Amino acid sequence: MIQQIELTLPAFKRGCHIITSHITSHLPELPAAGMLQIFIKHSSAALTLNENADPSVLRDMDYILNKVVPERDSGYAHTLEGDDDMPAHGKASLLGSSLMIPVTNGELNLGTWQGIYLCEFRNFGVPRKLVLTLIY
Amino acid sequence: MIQQIELTLPAFKRGCHIITSHITSHLPELPAAGMLQIFIKHSSAALTLNENADPSVLRDMDYILNKVVPERDSGYAHTLEGDDDMPAHGKASLLGSSLMIPVTNGELNLGTWQGIYLCEFRNFGVPRKLVLTLIY
Amino acid sequence: MIQQIELTLPAFKRGCHIITSHITSHLPELPAAGMLQIFIKHSSAALTLNENADPSVLRDMDYILNKVVPERDSGYAHTLEGDDDMPAHGKASLLGSSLMIPVTNGELNLGTWQGIYLCEFRNFGVPRKLVLTLIY
Repeated sequence: MIQQIELTLPAFKRGCHIITSHITSHLPELPAAGMLQIFIKHSSAALTLNENADPSVLRDMDYILNKVVPERDSGYAHTLEGDDDMPAHGKASLLGSSLMIPVTNGELNLGTWQGIYLCEFRNFGVPRKLVLTLIY
Repeated sequence: MIQQIELTLPAFKRGCHIITSHITSHLPELPAAGMLQIFIKHSSAALTLNENADPSVLRDMDYILNKVVPERDSGYAHTLEGDDDMPAHGKASLLGSSLMIPVTNGELNLGTWQGIYLCEFRNFGVPRKLVLTLIY
Repeated sequence: MIQQIELTLPAFKRGCHIITSHITSHLPELPAAGMLQIFIKHSSAALTLNENADPSVLRDMDYILNKVVPERDSGYAHTLEGDDDMPAHGKASLLGSSLMIPVTNGELNLGTWQGIYLCEFRNFGVPRKLVLTLIY
């Protein structure tokens, strides 16, 4: 059985944001066992799971990604859309566009410290489209 | 319901390549709702979703990955298979070996700008084996 | 059809470790066609697929990740849990918390050289909880 829901997140500013409650508020009743995919239909923002308790982790995650894929590298050819654009594509592929989360006993079976992150890599974030697919 | 198809891509040269049409040409009729996995059975090439319009993004993605995991780092122990080999393994794990793409209304539910990339990390690319698994 | 199994790995020391046989020893009889998810309920360790033959790849993978997300960067704010903590979160998001592996003819359909890696990023590794979800 498959259920699908498409939704659009509000625009988030550049950086990492916990969207767990945005996601769970859109979910139907969850089954005893299954899997949820969260898919982002964009190539300059990404989804990941990480620590949900200390806001400094969100800040440092953004800091790490900005160091791994720095802006204004003279080797970039794709520069017409701004200094943030090509690094955004690089970071999007490093984190990925899809999360697969097991569903158990009617809930997302996340670890105690795992939250769902939206990482917005553009300077001016726009509303991002997600597809939720529940397999059960 | 599960359908599986194995296929071998032609050899691609080192770098990132859009293979969306290679994939879609091998798919059966897609369901109203489901999910497609594309899995690569190798550890020195990877799959990712990224921008499908400007070829300079493909070039810059390869450039970024080569900077993140550089060759000829004196710290590498696994060097017998060539300077490109250990960096290829590193890049493969950073991008990942599996894509999960929602299927909606008989089509891959990708964003407007999302294409399927094969990233070949070896200097002399070889034919790469994929497994397509459709869940519906 | 969905089957789920939760298991706890023994503690591994910091670094990358092949856990393929730990996983397969916990699996039920596998179907003719399906998919297995391996999900880790933690944000300072990760799962990936990579080369299963030469132990130097495990060592170099750890070396690469430590270079991509170095410790003791003065830009980190999240430092209370030790020098290894924030880099662990960064590396966890770069590799990811979930593996999706096709199942074919009753076996994990991995490539010849692909093994399942647990990457433990904390200095003092603890037992890590996994959720295995089989879809068929």
